[in-house]
Amino acid sequence: MSFTKQYKVRFSDTDPAGVMYYPRFLDRFHAVFEDWFDECLKMPYRWMLEDTRLGFPTVHTQCDYREPCRFGETIVIELILTRIGSRSFTCTYKIRALGEDVVRVHAQVVTATVNLDTFEAVEVPARLRRQLEMRLEPTVRDVSGPAVPAAVSE
Amino acid sequence: MSFTKQYKVRFSDTDPAGVMYYPRFLDRFHAVFEDWFDECLKMPYRWMLEDTRLGFPTVHTQCDYREPCRFGETIVIELILTRIGSRSFTCTYKIRALGEDVVRVHAQVVTATVNLDTFEAVEVPARLRRQLEMRLEPTVRDVSGPAVPAAVSE
Amino acid sequence: MSFTKQYKVRFSDTDPAGVMYYPRFLDRFHAVFEDWFDECLKMPYRWMLEDTRLGFPTVHTQCDYREPCRFGETIVIELILTRIGSRSFTCTYKIRALGEDVVRVHAQVVTATVNLDTFEAVEVPARLRRQLEMRLEPTVRDVSGPAVPAAVSE
Amino acid sequence: MSFTKQYKVRFSDTDPAGVMYYPRFLDRFHAVFEDWFDECLKMPYRWMLEDTRLGFPTVHTQCDYREPCRFGETIVIELILTRIGSRSFTCTYKIRALGEDVVRVHAQVVTATVNLDTFEAVEVPARLRRQLEMRLEPTVRDVSGPAVPAAVSE
Repeated sequence: MSFTKQYKVRFSDTDPAGVMYYPRFLDRFHAVFEDWFDECLKMPYRWMLEDTRLGFPTVHTQCDYREPCRFGETIVIELILTRIGSRSFTCTYKIRALGEDVVRVHAQVVTATVNLDTFEAVEVPARLRRQLEMRLEPTVRDVSGPAVPAAVSE
Repeated sequence: MSFTKQYKVRFSDTDPAGVMYYPRFLDRFHAVFEDWFDECLKMPYRWMLEDTRLGFPTVHTQCDYREPCRFGETIVIELILTRIGSRSFTCTYKIRALGEDVVRVHAQVVTATVNLDTFEAVEVPARLRRQLEMRLEPTVRDVSGPAVPAAVSE
Repeated sequence: MSFTKQYKVRFSDTDPAGVMYYPRFLDRFHAVFEDWFDECLKMPYRWMLEDTRLGFPTVHTQCDYREPCRFGETIVIELILTRIGSRSFTCTYKIRALGEDVVRVHAQVVTATVNLDTFEAVEVPARLRRQLEMRLEPTVRDVSGPAVPAAVSE
Repeated sequence: MSFTKQYKVRFSDTDPAGVMYYPRFLDRFHAVFEDWFDECLKMPYRWMLEDTRLGFPTVHTQCDYREPCRFGETIVIELILTRIGSRSFTCTYKIRALGEDVVRVHAQVVTATVNLDTFEAVEVPARLRRQLEMRLEPTVRDVSGPAVPAAVSE
């Protein structure tokens, strides 16, 4: 149920230490998030913003940078929907080098749903919720206990 | 003991929703981190990298984006050193609008110390450790129990 | 009549070759352009966009990168208004290292005035024109012949 | 003989006016330039830099931004090699929306060849020159008169 995109680490992604500059990963997560709306949820991201005036501000991120990614490497970015709340949802991202199993970067990003004109939180709209529920990862959906994993609630 | 810098939110920091794009905050944290080395620790960041070959990769970030920052606003970014480990240390960052008390963005960033030529973790060098210890926040240093807050102990 | 701002070259401005990545200069020009509206023209840039719905898209840039700027250097960015047209104007930018005379980067940026809602070119509004005319560099304003320098008309 | 790459305009490429922020185009040109080395010249860009210590600083850019590119649009970036000098070469870039003929952005970028350790200009190495000569656009190569187009010599 995961969604993956490849990305080639660019000269401009890389800092003087020769590795991908850490805020750039968050930028790449957002690009995959946009593609996920466009290609997987079939609710184009631009249409959501411009026509429905639903916005998706990031309200929490946590990210482990375990191994550096170097200029010229092709990385695979995996998006997994791991939580659906009433007015937010959480995507987990894993980055690996193409052809490798080791997760180099592991992140969770909590996205709120807001009215873009007021920036107030709104319920995840029904149509979007249906799309999300079909893609929620079973290992997370099936756990007993609190719907929000501890790692997200802090 | 905290270190603050002002920053004016730029046109290019702002996304089509009219607010500062979330990875940009992490970029600003790094700019303040560089200034902290240059102006507070008196160990210029460029000199650290180029002459001592000590590197400071970010290994963990967590960030709460509580309120948006808008184009044209001046924000105050506060850096507080909140943990010193053997081969890493943690800075807490708080962002407020100039003249306001409300924290809009709250983050923790764990920085490792590595040999830039091998990218292997090394002990925080003695001279840097002395500088850091003088600036560790008392509220954190004085707590009984584990020196490393749970949220940071990954 | 010129307007200058200092800027410290950041780790994140710098590419793996150790020098400021060339598109970053254009980003810095825009930041100085915003400050020029805010501090010199006294017509805040955000107010122009949001309240008057006048937009300032860049329609032409030319830039000579003569000498690199390195991580940690402080540079001085000078903005000089060198042309006022009917629906556009031109700023010349010069970048020097702090305390040095040599121009490292020299650029011209042509900005159009548009209605932000339609993106159609509009006349430079009278109030803005008055502000601009007071700041036009004499060496350019006094030349006989075409008001638009050849280098800009392409 | 041209080389093209598609690119989807991202949320983060777009400014509050809803269009691609102009320095971002230069960043995209560089990404296509890297791919051109990797896929067309068969001299991988990273290998050039790291193993041969040949660097490719941009020494001149000129760019006409004729029509805006909007968030969510797919654009086609075309790279055409239009000049080979002794210690530099020029690429022309044209950006169109996918499926359209109109050129929205038209640019020329002059790249020097330098020794990355000294940053001094060096002759275009023979092996690279052979690769470049095979790809020089005939309409430019065949013109009589100066090898360097006027537009580049300024």
